[in-house]
This record gives sequence, structure tokens and C-alpha cells, in this order.
Amino acid sequence: MQYGYFNDDLREYVITTPRTPLPWINYLGNRDFFSLISNTAGGYSFYKDAKLRRLTRYRYNACPPDQNGRYYYIKDGSCVWNPGWQPTQTELDRYTCRHGLGYTVISGEKNGVSAELTCFVPLNDPCEVNRLVLENRSAEIKDLDIFSLVEFCLWNAVDDATNFQRNYNTGEVEVDGSAIYHITEYRERRNHYAVFAVNTAIEGFDTSRDAFCGPYRGFSSPETVCNGCSKNSIAHGWAPVGSHHIRLHLQPGEKRSLLFVLAYIENPLEEKWEAPGVIAKIRAKELLARYREDQQAEFAFAELHNYWSGLLNRFSVCTGDEKLDRMVNVWNQYQCMVTFNLSRSASYFESGTGRGMGFRDSCQDLLGFVHLVPSRARQRILDIAATQFEDGSAYHQYQPLTKKGNSDIGSGFNDDPLWLIACVSAYLRETGDFSILQENVPFQNDEKKVRPLLEHLRRSFDFTVSRKGPHGLPLIGRADWNDCLNLNCFSTEPGESFQTCSNMESRKAESVFIAGMFVKYGGEYADLCDWLGDTAEAARARAEIEKVRTATETSGWDGEWFLRAYDAFGKPVGSRTCEEGQIYIEPQGMCVMAGIGVENGLADKALNSVMERLETPYGVMLLQPAYTCYHAELGEITSYPPGYKENASIFCHNNPWISCAEAVLGHGERAFHIYRLTCPAYVEAFSEIHRTEPYVYSQTVAGSDAKTFGEAKNSWLTGSAAWNFVNISQYILGIRPGLEGLEIDPCIPRWMKGFTVHRVYRGANYYITVDNTAGVEKGVAAMKVNGRPVAGNRVLLENARSEYNVEVIMG
Amino acid sequence: MQYGYFNDDLREYVITTPRTPLPWINYLGNRDFFSLISNTAGGYSFYKDAKLRRLTRYRYNACPPDQNGRYYYIKDGSCVWNPGWQPTQTELDRYTCRHGLGYTVISGEKNGVSAELTCFVPLNDPCEVNRLVLENRSAEIKDLDIFSLVEFCLWNAVDDATNFQRNYNTGEVEVDGSAIYHITEYRERRNHYAVFAVNTAIEGFDTSRDAFCGPYRGFSSPETVCNGCSKNSIAHGWAPVGSHHIRLHLQPGEKRSLLFVLAYIENPLEEKWEAPGVIAKIRAKELLARYREDQQAEFAFAELHNYWSGLLNRFSVCTGDEKLDRMVNVWNQYQCMVTFNLSRSASYFESGTGRGMGFRDSCQDLLGFVHLVPSRARQRILDIAATQFEDGSAYHQYQPLTKKGNSDIGSGFNDDPLWLIACVSAYLRETGDFSILQENVPFQNDEKKVRPLLEHLRRSFDFTVSRKGPHGLPLIGRADWNDCLNLNCFSTEPGESFQTCSNMESRKAESVFIAGMFVKYGGEYADLCDWLGDTAEAARARAEIEKVRTATETSGWDGEWFLRAYDAFGKPVGSRTCEEGQIYIEPQGMCVMAGIGVENGLADKALNSVMERLETPYGVMLLQPAYTCYHAELGEITSYPPGYKENASIFCHNNPWISCAEAVLGHGERAFHIYRLTCPAYVEAFSEIHRTEPYVYSQTVAGSDAKTFGEAKNSWLTGSAAWNFVNISQYILGIRPGLEGLEIDPCIPRWMKGFTVHRVYRGANYYITVDNTAGVEKGVAAMKVNGRPVAGNRVLLENARSEYNVEVIMG
Repeated sequence: MQYGYFNDDLREYVITTPRTPLPWINYLGNRDFFSLISNTAGGYSFYKDAKLRRLTRYRYNACPPDQNGRYYYIKDGSCVWNPGWQPTQTELDRYTCRHGLGYTVISGEKNGVSAELTCFVPLNDPCEVNRLVLENRSAEIKDLDIFSLVEFCLWNAVDDATNFQRNYNTGEVEVDGSAIYHITEYRERRNHYAVFAVNTAIEGFDTSRDAFCGPYRGFSSPETVCNGCSKNSIAHGWAPVGSHHIRLHLQPGEKRSLLFVLAYIENPLEEKWEAPGVIAKIRAKELLARYREDQQAEFAFAELHNYWSGLLNRFSVCTGDEKLDRMVNVWNQYQCMVTFNLSRSASYFESGTGRGMGFRDSCQDLLGFVHLVPSRARQRILDIAATQFEDGSAYHQYQPLTKKGNSDIGSGFNDDPLWLIACVSAYLRETGDFSILQENVPFQNDEKKVRPLLEHLRRSFDFTVSRKGPHGLPLIGRADWNDCLNLNCFSTEPGESFQTCSNMESRKAESVFIAGMFVKYGGEYADLCDWLGDTAEAARARAEIEKVRTATETSGWDGEWFLRAYDAFGKPVGSRTCEEGQIYIEPQGMCVMAGIGVENGLADKALNSVMERLETPYGVMLLQPAYTCYHAELGEITSYPPGYKENASIFCHNNPWISCAEAVLGHGERAFHIYRLTCPAYVEAFSEIHRTEPYVYSQTVAGSDAKTFGEAKNSWLTGSAAWNFVNISQYILGIRPGLEGLEIDPCIPRWMKGFTVHRVYRGANYYITVDNTAGVEKGVAAMKVNGRPVAGNRVLLENARSEYNVEVIMG
Repeated sequence: MQYGYFNDDLREYVITTPRTPLPWINYLGNRDFFSLISNTAGGYSFYKDAKLRRLTRYRYNACPPDQNGRYYYIKDGSCVWNPGWQPTQTELDRYTCRHGLGYTVISGEKNGVSAELTCFVPLNDPCEVNRLVLENRSAEIKDLDIFSLVEFCLWNAVDDATNFQRNYNTGEVEVDGSAIYHITEYRERRNHYAVFAVNTAIEGFDTSRDAFCGPYRGFSSPETVCNGCSKNSIAHGWAPVGSHHIRLHLQPGEKRSLLFVLAYIENPLEEKWEAPGVIAKIRAKELLARYREDQQAEFAFAELHNYWSGLLNRFSVCTGDEKLDRMVNVWNQYQCMVTFNLSRSASYFESGTGRGMGFRDSCQDLLGFVHLVPSRARQRILDIAATQFEDGSAYHQYQPLTKKGNSDIGSGFNDDPLWLIACVSAYLRETGDFSILQENVPFQNDEKKVRPLLEHLRRSFDFTVSRKGPHGLPLIGRADWNDCLNLNCFSTEPGESFQTCSNMESRKAESVFIAGMFVKYGGEYADLCDWLGDTAEAARARAEIEKVRTATETSGWDGEWFLRAYDAFGKPVGSRTCEEGQIYIEPQGMCVMAGIGVENGLADKALNSVMERLETPYGVMLLQPAYTCYHAELGEITSYPPGYKENASIFCHNNPWISCAEAVLGHGERAFHIYRLTCPAYVEAFSEIHRTEPYVYSQTVAGSDAKTFGEAKNSWLTGSAAWNFVNISQYILGIRPGLEGLEIDPCIPRWMKGFTVHRVYRGANYYITVDNTAGVEKGVAAMKVNGRPVAGNRVLLENARSEYNVEVIMG
């Protein structure tokens, strides 16, 4: 069952009912100012940091769900309604929500009045623009009262939700014409405020929530709106809101457009006040003046549109499978941008108040983003690397505002260093910008400890070399990619974090997954050394890699699949000898991607075991059988009910690893089959089961042990976005950036008789045609570049060439 | 304007409308299991710790306010209503809420059906009992569907409100007959669960909030209730709730009683399961069996009633002023119990997730509680003292579950040590239990560093002796009683805590308030040393006190009042030479209470200045003029808008200090006048302005600079309770415990022609009659004990006497 459809021409998802199984959201903003917006206009805005600079208040886990947002109430006689249905929930005669790239358009119609609300964050201003267009489609004159409503957050979202003994006293506003300024704490240490304004004269306003709603009333039936009359309230403490009242007199057929702007303004310290106790508004007025006329808003909207067209132009495919094309060309790349921007901070599942940027998360997010805006990827790499320690380990998280490592959680996740190699390698392969390796980057954010980035990579590599356990496999530390496999944490205290508690220094718990990573990314490090001419270092690295490869194929092999780990007592994890958790997905994917066991058949066996034991119609489960009891020696993974999250759900992040692994083995049918299982455009068909947005990946889908098998959670902010893009673009379609240039190596299902790709790469346009008339799964039989046959499947770079035509014949 | 009235016979406050200006709450529970309950049945329950063991979910700052609580829906035909109006807000034909001592009774009537909900926490079981009595007062048969509803919190209230990427996956329940077990995380490290049960067979149940409410619906119109049919849903993740469905067929005049119990159950680790995956329920069933029959609930309710009668019997007065009597005899003592139990953790303003027990707070709370349950006060003193450092300083806060000092906030509040002397002195004067001084108590919770409590007191005293500034006045540290006067913290970072940031070691910032405290409580320490026979230590102490007294009368005096402090640059704070903040309340009260300036007229001048500059019809403001700008050198106090909180509001905590000070000077009229200004029973008359509960003190009332002058905030958990009880009982009524026994020294208004007091003191009953036919303000002209005239005003202890009759003639 669907609740909408893709409009591929407009690159939109069109939702046709406000009653989606869960609120289906979109993100506005690309750089500093961000908004979340649901299909009923719920959500909130923040500037740079969802915890410390939150502009508007949002209530997570509310009941009814999705409170609150930017709301526009329309009072038409005694009928009060919202174009997005919420919060009045007045039934609409017509409703659509179109989520596009960086914008959302919500349209509602009631009793002959239509309202179209277009919301976007312009490219170059820290604000959200809300254009509300009202049209009288009836045959009668309509006298309408329009009320806007945002509820301000008192900046720090944690304090805002907890410290009421203080906060109920601090709220302050200023009102100046049609502009409502939220200035809480501006009197003291803040030099920023929010402004919510409309480009027309207003009938009245409210800034006190209690005045706006009336006693014991909520946003679903505010007194002000129901009475059709604002109270011109000024908030003193309690809950400041911004609400404008506008009266419209519409002739039949008449249309009116209103421009509302919610902006974040920062003043220099010495220019905070324009008079004693009166905030300086010049910067706010300058910004508002840029969105005064419809034409200005239309221009900004077109700029945004063009920006996205330019970005998506960098990789597009035409396969004839519309679902595949829309994911590759639009939605997967779009989600990659969002995860790059927001890491795991603010979604409808992430409250924006917790962890900052994850080291591991951000490195992986970059894999799917680097082709879009390489310069931003470059800066991110330098930020991330600066949180590394001198021994190669890394702060597991860092704060987006300060870029400092987070010492609350600290280090000890032994896969982290290798992800740095992964993302630098991806950056180099994409851009050819080897200068980044010579950039001086601090350790531990300490400017006194700077070394070239290349040295950071060496230390990442050697971190694993020097930390191996009894079987010659890498030690796991607090956890590896699977944050819930906590082999050195024996927690008995309720609520204690499994990630920050590591009370056993076993020196025994080893990870086969990190072994796979080491072979794969260590290999990329060795390739890089070779490329740079340091053959000695390359040889040293390869010798180390061989040791780990051997250890993996012997001590890391369980007979039919790769083990997951050895625990702190040396007992295997993810083995047929275990009662539960006999097979895990991660090592099967990563080890095969690393090429381990490819020659000797172990890889084939491992992937067969995955198919037999982990695959479901909704994707590949993380492990089987699910843990039914808590095991202190395994940690958080056993804390979840069976079938949920790390305990045997379908984790969309590592499903592509299996697909990649199948591609490594040349299994195009299997690779594409696995890809499709979790791919949103295909999942759309059973949205009533899946429940989260059908245009983006979710982190987790309940596994077969769960009562809600197939139900997804944690949509949007997941490494699934990047990895699925890497999988489909590089492994399945096989358009793979290398150190020397593009390689073309598709691995596709037999029925796919070919495809074309347009790719912007290192400043040039590549027009690639793949012909699979032969109906094979893998193999390039012949290739022409610019009309000339070439040997192999690499497109060598030619000086100053801006266009490459590549013809590939599979066979 | 009032929204209810006091019923003195029942010791209840009766609220006659659900639409009070703010939710008006009560507390259930005295020891381990606590509930907050509003007049519309909102609120939540927790076991011992409001942060870590929260049973039910509450949404602070919700809109509409006060979501959610223990709700009972009654469906009578198509009409759905709640006895407490919320959450359906169906208008009732009749409504009352009676808040009593440890219980609340909410009664509603609609369409001939009456429902009376009695909520209490029994004395000896960790549960809340809800007795719902339904009566058909109509002439027709009534077929009613009753639905109960609580929403479970996933134990850790902070995690519950933030960590949705995990929490939406973990919720679990078991249902067994009429008992709904909330068992989230029981599978892993928790050995506790909640159970919500009813003493009758049920028609159906729900445990999934989404199922209960239906899509996009809330608690105000749940689908289940509106349809009159439970869904028998089992929660898997998302939001577990507990809801029973009971069908009642009531003949005209028929009555039915239902007993619901929400309980917290802890199992021994080795007895967690009764079968694999099935929780052990034996302890739950045992508890529930104790509340199966109405008679059992009635007995438990009577026990609770008797418990409170016994407690309040320890101090009661009859003055002829009913407002005064009800405050002294009931509500002030009741609030003292609540503040002693909960410190500043969980109220409708304190979210229960923040600071634990305050060192300073708890010491002061004890002053108003020690006469009620001395044994609990004793244990509290030992707990508090154990968080002291060896140098006499103290952790400013400690965790109630662990009793360990909180190192996040640490030490550095230089008044803290002296409050330990204050509360130990109060305990000794109340009980005569000098054995406590020989109790071995650790420093810094370190069992290796134990010393007798008396040694702790000496170090408290010497902490101030050894930390004085350029004027010989005590250094202030991070702050003193006024947590917002941060003289060594120059904060420019938005949101930074003013209390944990102390970035300047000025060694210059001095507090006149601590000077007053030192003279007062240092003096009590010296008296104690004398009593113990250590005259050398007493003399040493008095010599130190005299130095500080002299410094206060010279460097601490501004000409017309006591200075507040010197800042980090040696500039006076609270001086006529300041532009704003010229006079502060705290030093005027504390210095005069300490006797400083009493002989030489400074005290009189200071209190006159308070009257002229700080007094308002709603109480005495903290300072004047209010700060209009932020001063980094003064800290948080200047961060509040003028008239709010520490920046010139009426702080109810230090108003009694002025009243006490007036009493020290013999000004009975003034003392009582100041007492009345903030006293709830008198404030009740203008509840529409005051807004918080008229039966308890609030922390703060907006001052004359504020637009909401007279509006109170932060009700219930405030040191105002203890200090007002100390003031009225010891200073105004003058029934003052001394080391040797009771002293009687009233200081009352002339119109009060006498009063009687019953006091239980050191195991004996004191019946005290005060005759003020003379109409004086102060002075005991004659006193008889047990019929025999005695000299002076002390009642000497007589061996084995259990009853003292004391007749006092003022004049």
C-alpha cells in the first residue's frame, strides 16, 4: 500500500494523505541553517547545532505525534483549518505534500479556499522562507483570518526541555511592525536572536503561548484563532511564540501571496544594541528585505533548484528501471547530502541533543558524498583527522560547533582509525587532489601536535598492526562498527552506557570484522604508498595485511562462514558452536569485499550461508538466531528484544556490504537482488508495513523474530545512504573512481541489457554507455574511449580533456 | 479571587474548578515511592529517584499543559469524560479536587454518574493506590465502559526523553489477567518492573499507546475509548501504556468500587524469571493481594491518615487566626516534609532530571523537618556530612540513590560548610541526642577518612576562618546562598553554567552574607563547645567570631544597610554607590539574625532600609534597583529580566529572614506583617495574580519591576517552607528548642492577645499557654511550669516527666 508517489520529472515525492503511518519528513538547508519538516508542516529549525542553537521548539514522542511546526491557521467563517491538516486536524477537501530537494510544498483546500505553503531554506541566508499562497476558488467573496504560529525554543534544546525553574522566567521578545523578535538571553551572553516576520502589515500578533492558546488549550484549537482576534501579547517568561494575524478579503478567483521568514541573526558584540534595552535590528532588516517581494522568493527558490540540478548532474544513470534510476539519480544522493550535513544529530528519531559528529559515521557518510561537493569533503576530512590521537586512535565523536573531540565518550573503538583511510582514499580517488596528504593536521585538536595527513593514515594503519589478540586478529576495543558488540564491557548497572563503560582490559577480544577492514583499507593504504612511490612502506603494509588475511582465513573461519569475533575469554562469537548469534552479517560482507577467501571458495561459502540463514523478504538480518537473553560478555547487542536493532534486525547499513561482496564474486543477480530488498523505491509498495519514508533509507527494519517484522525505524540519518550509493554506483553499475582515473566494471543482473551513465569526474564529463546485450553478470569484453578501443576497463586521464565518451561492451 | 478553599477539619484544600491558573498539585508518598498529582489527575510516579526510576511518563511544558497522569475514562453512551476533567476536558456537572495529606480525592459528576477517585501511596508499600468509586445517581440503568490509562516511562527519564533511536525498540510488557506488567529492560540489567492492575476481571486491555489512541490521536480522544472497545494490544517497542477496560452495569443508586494499583517491584537477581522469558511475579502478586478488597484499601488509607495526625500532633497552635493556624498546624509542616523528601528534584517546575540533593538545600530543609521525624533527620545529617571534604568544604550536591557527592558541580560554595553547623545544631536542640557528635563520618564518602561528626563541625567553622578576604570578610567562592551571585565567574559563553564555571581566583570577592552566617552559626558552634565542656575551643571560636563581627560592622556596612559583598575587584556590591543592585535582602536578614548591629542601631537602620526600599504588597524583594544589563562580574543574577528570580523578585526563602530579624529586634508587628505577605493562606485571596498553589510556598514571586508583578513560580520545592516554619514557630510564636530545653520567647503583633501551643519535645508533651492581654510585642513577664512559677523563660527538663504545662504571661 502506498501513501503517495514519486514524481520523477520534478524530483519530488508526492504524499497524498496527511495520515502517513509515521510523519514523513524532509530536510531544508544545506550548510548552516537547517529545518526538519514533516508532511503536515511539523518539525523545527536550528542554526548549525541542533542542541545549542535551536530556534523552534519540538516535542519528541508527543501524543498526538509530531508537535509542533510552522503552522498557518486559516479561519474561514467558523471553520478553522491548516493547509497541512495539523494541528487542527480539520478534514481537508484536498491535500498534497510534495517533498522536493531542499523544499517542501504543502497544499490544502477547504470550502473553496486553497492554500499552498512552500517552505525552503535559501542557499545564502540563515533563514527558512514560508510562502503561503491563498486562492479563492469559490464563487463567493472570502474574508479570511490567517494566523501564523511558531513556538520558540530557548536556544539550548536540553536546557529548554529540563530547566523550567529558570526558563519560565527568561523568555523575552520584541515586536516591531510585522517582525517578532525572539531575544531570550540576548540581554546576557547571547549575541544572536531569531526573527519571525511577514511581508505585510498585520492585524495583530501574539508572542505569549498562553495568550495565544488560552488556558488549558493547545495548538489544535487556540483561543486566538477560534476568536479570530490576536491579543497583542508580549511574553514575559513562560513560552514565547511568534504569531501574526492577517486579514484577507479575497474576491472569487483572487489569489494572495504572503512571505513569512524565520531567520537567525548574529550581531557583533559591540553592535548588540541600537538603544539601551533595544536590540540592534539592522542585520535582521537587511535579511528580511531580501525576501520582501514574491519575485525575490521565487528567485531564491530557483537558485536552490539550480543548485540541486547542478549537484545531481554529477552522477546520473539511465537503466530503464525507473525505481533504480530515481534512487540513484535523486533520492539516494539527496540522503547522502543530508547525512553528510547532519551526521546522526537531528531527525525524527535523533533528538538533536545527543552525540555530535561520529568519527566512524562521518567517514562513511563521506563515501557517498565526496563526488557531490569535494571541497566540503576535504574540509570534513581535515576536521575529522584532527580528532585523532597520536597513537592512531580517535575520539569517537566530536562537537560540530567546536570541532573538538568529545571526551565524555573518548576513544577505544578500534575500527575508527581504519575509516579515516577509507574516506581519504575515496577522496583521493574522486578528486586526484593528493595535496591533501601534505596538509598539516593536529592530533587531539592540539595545534602543537601537527603532522601531515599522510602520517595520520600511517598511524591509523599501525594502530591495528600493534593491537592484535591471541589469534593474530585485531583487538576490538569497546566496539567496532557494531557499536553494540561490547566485548570488554561487563555491565550490570541499569542504564549504564555500554560504549563508555569498558571495565575489562581483556587483551583477548578480537574482531574478524576489523580484520576484514584492515585487509581492505590497509590494501588501499598500500596502493596509495605505491602510487606515491614509497614502495618500501607499501611492501611493509602488504606484509602486515597478509598476516591478518591468513589469520582471518584460519582463526576467523567457522567452517561455513566467517566468525564475528572472539570474546574476552577467547570464546568464538558468531559461530555454529554458539547457541544464539551463530552467524553475523558484518564479517561476511567486509571480508569478501576485502577479497578474503575469494580465491579459495570461503567467500562463496560465506555468502551462501548469508542467503540461507540471514536473508528475508525485507533484507538481510544482522545475525541469527536472535539473542533471547542478556549476555554481559557480549553487551548491548543482547539488550534488545529479538528482531530489533542490532539484535537480529535488518540493518540497512550493512546490507550493501553483502551486495558489494556478491559483486566482488561476480554475482550480478544476487548483488542486485540484495540491493532491491531494502531500497526505498522498491519498498514503497508496502509502505503500510515499512511505515517510514519510502524515499530514504532507514537504519533498521524489524527482523523475522520481531512481531513487527518489516517495520522500519530511524529513517534518514544512517550510513545506509552512503553505502548504498557506493554499492549501486561503484559495485553494481561499476563506475569506480581509482587513483589513476575511472574504472568501469559493472556487475548487474542478466536481464539488464545495458545502461548509460553521466558522470562529472575530476572536472570532466563522462558519458558512459554499457551494452549488456550478452546478458552476462560481469565482465567487460571491449571498451572504447572517445571512439578508440582501449585495453582493460580503465579510462585514462587525458590532459585538458573535458569530455569522455566511453562505450563498454559486457560479455 | 479564589479557586477553592481550605477545609481545616479535614486538613484539605478543596479546589472547585479544574481550570486553576496553573495545575495545582499534591505529593503522594513519604519514603520510597512518590507521585505528583495535579487537581486534574496529571503527574507521574517514581521510586526513590525521579531521574533513574521513573515509572510513568510526564511531558513538561506541554501544550495543553499537564500531560499526562493516571487517567480514568468513563464512556456513558456517546459521552466520554474523566472525573478530573483532563484529558478529555468534557465539561462536568460537578467537580471537586481535595488535596489532603498524602492523598488526593478527585470527584466528578456527569449525566447522573458520579466518580470519585482517591489516590494515595500507602505507608508501607511501593505503590500508588487509585480507588475509583462510581455511583449511578440517575433514575436509569447505566451501562458504563471504564478505561484506565497510564503511560510508562522507560525508567531513566532523561534517556526516555531523548534517546529514541534506541527507546522506540525496547519497550516490552507482559499481561496476566488484570495485571499489566511493564518490563522494559528487565530482560537485561534491570531487576525491577512496574505493574498496573485492577481488582476485577477486565473486558480487555491495551499496552500500545498507538493502538490505544489510534493514528494521530491523543489522550484527549483515544480511539479505544471512543469506540468503547480495547484492542488487547501488546507493545513491541514504541510507547508502552497500561489500560484496562471494565464494563459496569449500574442500577439506579448502585455504587461500584474499583481498586487500581500501580506498583514498583524489585526481584533478587537470582529470582528474576519464573520461566524462560517470563518474569517472576510472586512479589507483585503478594503486593496486589494487599489491595484486593476495599476494606484493605480503607485500612491503608486510615493508616496514612493516622500517620499524619501523629506527625502534626508534634506541633500545633491555636491563635484564633484561622489562616495562621492552618499554615502552622498543617500546610507549612506538610511542605517541610515534602521538601525534606524531595529536595529540589521533582515538581511541576523541577523536571526531576537535574541536580540531586543540595548540601545547602537539605541542611536548611532539615530545620523545618527535624521535629517531625528526628530519626530521619539524623540519618540525613550523616549522609550530608559524608560529602564534606577534609578541608571543611563540601560537594554542593549529591545523588539520592548513591549518596555520593556530585563531582560535576563539585565544591566551592563557601556558605555550605556553615549550613552543616546550622542543621546539626537544630538537631541537637530538638533531640538532645548528643551521641550523633561521636558518630564516625567519612570525608568525601571515603570510608578510609572517617572522623567524628564534631570534627566535621570544627572543620566547617575553620573553613571560613581560613578563607577571608582583604576586608577580613569571608571569601564567597562560586556563590553563597544566592547561587546566582557569581563573583569569581566571568562568563561570556552562552548557556555556560554560572555555578560550575569559576574562571577567576580573585581571592578578593567577599560575602557579607557569609559573615552574618558565620557569626550566627559560629556562635551556635561555640555554645555547643561550651555545653560539651570544651571552653578553650568555645573561646577560640568566639574570638574568631568577634573579628568577623567587627569586620561586618565596619567594612560590611554601607551607611544605611549592610553591603552584600565585595566583587573580584574589591568593588562593593549592594551599596548606595552602585547604579543598580544598591541594596540586597540577604545580609540585612542574616546579619541581624546573628545579632550584628543590634546593640549599636545598625540593625534597626538596616531593617528600615529594607522596609523603604524592598518591601512590596507581595513581599520583600531580593534587591533594588533591578539589574537592567548583564554584568559579567556579578554573574547569573544579572542574567534574569528585571523583577524575575534572583534579579529583584520576591524570594520567599529569605523573606522569613527579615521577619526573624524583626523579631530579634522585638518588632512583633513588623515580624508578623512580613510573615503574612508571602504566607499562602493569606495569599489565597488573590490567587488569580499569584497563580501557584495557595496552600504552599513558591520560591519566587515576580517583583515590582516585572510586568507580571505578584505572579509566583517554582512552587513546593523551596527552602521557604523550612524557613517560614522556623520563623513562625521559633521567632514569632517563640517556641524555641535550646540545648538545655525549650525556651519561650514570643514576638507577636499587639492585637494577638494570646495563643496556645501543643508541642512534643524530647519525648514529652508540652501544653503552652501564652497570655498577651498586655498587648505587647515581646517580653515574658512571668512563666509557670506545671503550676510553679519559674524565673526566666526556659522550661528545664525534668527526669521522666512526660507532660509539661507551661503558662506564659507576656508584658
